[in-house]
Amino acid sequence: MTVLLEVAPDRIAAAARRVMARCEELARVSAAPDGIERVYLSPEHARVNRLAAEWMRELGMRTRQDAAGNQVGRLDRIEGDRLSPDAPTLMIGSHLDTVPDAGRFDGIVGVLMGLEVARLLRTPVGDGRHGSALPFAIEVVAFSDEEGTRFGKALLGSSAVAGLWDEDWWALTDAGGTTLRQAFLEFGLDPARIGEAARRPDELVGYLEAHIEQGPELDRRGEALAVVSSIASARRFQLVVEGEARHAGGTPYDMRRDALLGASEAALAVERICQAEHHIIGTVGQLEAFPGAVNIVPGEARFSLDLRGEFDGHRDDVWDAISHELDAIMGRRGLRWHSREVHDAAAVMCAPLLQDVVRQGITSTRATGSEDPAVIFSRAGHDAMSIGAITDVGMLFLRNPDGISHHRDESVSGADVALGIRALAESVLHLAADRRA
Amino acid sequence: MTVLLEVAPDRIAAAARRVMARCEELARVSAAPDGIERVYLSPEHARVNRLAAEWMRELGMRTRQDAAGNQVGRLDRIEGDRLSPDAPTLMIGSHLDTVPDAGRFDGIVGVLMGLEVARLLRTPVGDGRHGSALPFAIEVVAFSDEEGTRFGKALLGSSAVAGLWDEDWWALTDAGGTTLRQAFLEFGLDPARIGEAARRPDELVGYLEAHIEQGPELDRRGEALAVVSSIASARRFQLVVEGEARHAGGTPYDMRRDALLGASEAALAVERICQAEHHIIGTVGQLEAFPGAVNIVPGEARFSLDLRGEFDGHRDDVWDAISHELDAIMGRRGLRWHSREVHDAAAVMCAPLLQDVVRQGITSTRATGSEDPAVIFSRAGHDAMSIGAITDVGMLFLRNPDGISHHRDESVSGADVALGIRALAESVLHLAADRRA
Repeated sequence: MTVLLEVAPDRIAAAARRVMARCEELARVSAAPDGIERVYLSPEHARVNRLAAEWMRELGMRTRQDAAGNQVGRLDRIEGDRLSPDAPTLMIGSHLDTVPDAGRFDGIVGVLMGLEVARLLRTPVGDGRHGSALPFAIEVVAFSDEEGTRFGKALLGSSAVAGLWDEDWWALTDAGGTTLRQAFLEFGLDPARIGEAARRPDELVGYLEAHIEQGPELDRRGEALAVVSSIASARRFQLVVEGEARHAGGTPYDMRRDALLGASEAALAVERICQAEHHIIGTVGQLEAFPGAVNIVPGEARFSLDLRGEFDGHRDDVWDAISHELDAIMGRRGLRWHSREVHDAAAVMCAPLLQDVVRQGITSTRATGSEDPAVIFSRAGHDAMSIGAITDVGMLFLRNPDGISHHRDESVSGADVALGIRALAESVLHLAADRRA
Repeated sequence: MTVLLEVAPDRIAAAARRVMARCEELARVSAAPDGIERVYLSPEHARVNRLAAEWMRELGMRTRQDAAGNQVGRLDRIEGDRLSPDAPTLMIGSHLDTVPDAGRFDGIVGVLMGLEVARLLRTPVGDGRHGSALPFAIEVVAFSDEEGTRFGKALLGSSAVAGLWDEDWWALTDAGGTTLRQAFLEFGLDPARIGEAARRPDELVGYLEAHIEQGPELDRRGEALAVVSSIASARRFQLVVEGEARHAGGTPYDMRRDALLGASEAALAVERICQAEHHIIGTVGQLEAFPGAVNIVPGEARFSLDLRGEFDGHRDDVWDAISHELDAIMGRRGLRWHSREVHDAAAVMCAPLLQDVVRQGITSTRATGSEDPAVIFSRAGHDAMSIGAITDVGMLFLRNPDGISHHRDESVSGADVALGIRALAESVLHLAADRRA
């Protein structure tokens, strides 16, 4: 056990209590009267940014809202006795937006833990200002859109920071018909300046993100924290099975080409094929039969497929196996099928160095001689996926009892948050030690 | 081969041509600009009733539109040299309403064939009037609602004639929110007088209906006509499978309780169980997953089941087997299921005497020494189901190439219609001979 952080345990405990209290405070900023909903470029987005900026300034950070509505707080590096505004930067962040009827921790806890790490590691430079005595500046970033709830496109905030903004996105509309461009203007942002949100790789040391696990692995293992090895990305497909709609009474089985039965076999084949593989998850979340009358053999069925795996190649092999099986099923039943890929992004690997510093950070929280920390891959997407395009990323997962997320029952314990704050702060110190070496 | 009908073959051929031409004429009476749609109590309903009444009067029939909007034409029995208005009556009929985007023959061809049979069998009594020299009056009935397209409840017209009208039905609404009661008033019918549409069993000799087969049996056998043995009725269920909605990325297979996969297995079990039985058809026509998001494991799935068999007991045994299998499937998957029966009516057996006269009628159209006519049961519902509550019913099926119905490609050949007219007329004569004996 290597411990670099020299702070009293009660400071960590107080930091965790503050994180938990602020999660409750942010949960009250919601567009929904019962439940939590904060979407991109909404009045709630503006309110939580103002709160985050206040908390950042309270730490002596320089703050700004960037051109994509992300809220950023910066502890400049201290060089000699002055702050150096252009030093390479370690970003620590996550997001403050939510899904509909959300929990209180997804994204949020990572931003607030970042602030507490900055509080633990900051050094006063006078005038109420603070800086970073480490060999890099520290920025805490509250990303503005990770969930994609409003415009159907996820990771908008971090995509802007990563310079991945696509001009086609301006035409995206929300449920009320407002375009992303119009929403920018209404929020007070200038679409023409979106490029200013982008960071250059040479400005960055790396990116660290703490996040609740959106699954039950840690809870099952009885561990509080894990190193994330990679962030799997989903490939998503919309599939259509075509048969022939006919009268339910008059059409004997051997004349039926029932699209719904083909789709049912397909859904079960997805389960069977993925279950036989390690670290592959396939989900049919949507399925509907057409014309959808009680007395008509379905002539068409449409369903979705969400396919995730730790490694892109493995996941793509499984899609090939599923496609092959669908050919066989539909062939037997006299059906046709086709699919449209609606989402495909490569998995993002966490950088070996950052995996290592996070591992050391977690180790510092554990009893001497305990086993190595858990290393798991994320089946859910995170801001780190976009940021991985411009710098090394590392992630720390916190135990999520029952593994429930995107749900009001989502939870994390204050004790685990305290361990997480310590581990994240130690990770930063290990990274600093590595850079000095 | 017993032939009682003494008419020149060219009269039958002309009758069939008239039926085919009138099917085309009625097809032009449609609420849809492209395709055929005529629903209960619509302007199109009024127009086809006027056309049918005109054709009835042209045959010297007494006509009336009954209290449920059914159009009736009557050839009174001739007793001595006078018409006897109260003689027991043989009803011949079918319906003129349609499903959306309908074919031209379902129901319609049976009404028009009834008119041609009346034309062949009528006897002049002077003043342009005609009657029936048979031991019963003949009524041709064009039922006003068999499909249930507008109010979701089928067989409204024939239910009124059978005295089965349910006061609860007045509150049924169409897609525009108009109640059945309001629609009656707008059509010019008086809801308070609905009881007047009902016929008493002692007024009736029986009911005969010709209808296209809504399946491919006759076409497969290479035969034009069949005796119908019974009209199977569907039991219909709405089923709900309950599991747990969870994040698609974060939930491993062993923690999933995926309602859609349970429903998929259920749909395939219905197919497997029914296919293993003779004369049982089960159809899952509707299926939907909830919440229906691409990245959420479905927590609920809802689907319909339409179950038909020749014999109610057999069909009910199959439902028991399906229920048993669903218990097993859902138990294995940690799911719950429940069902609500939304439709259940007993199968209606065609009366042995009327099956026999229809068989003789068909035999009279065939070469000497040919095999007995096909006897098949109807998997689709017909007006004869309601009328079976008050009198004996018999049905004659006409070959339907490809077995397609409830579809614009529905067809029947003029040659088969000619055979059907002859067989139906002969059936009536055989029934008359039986009554005289």
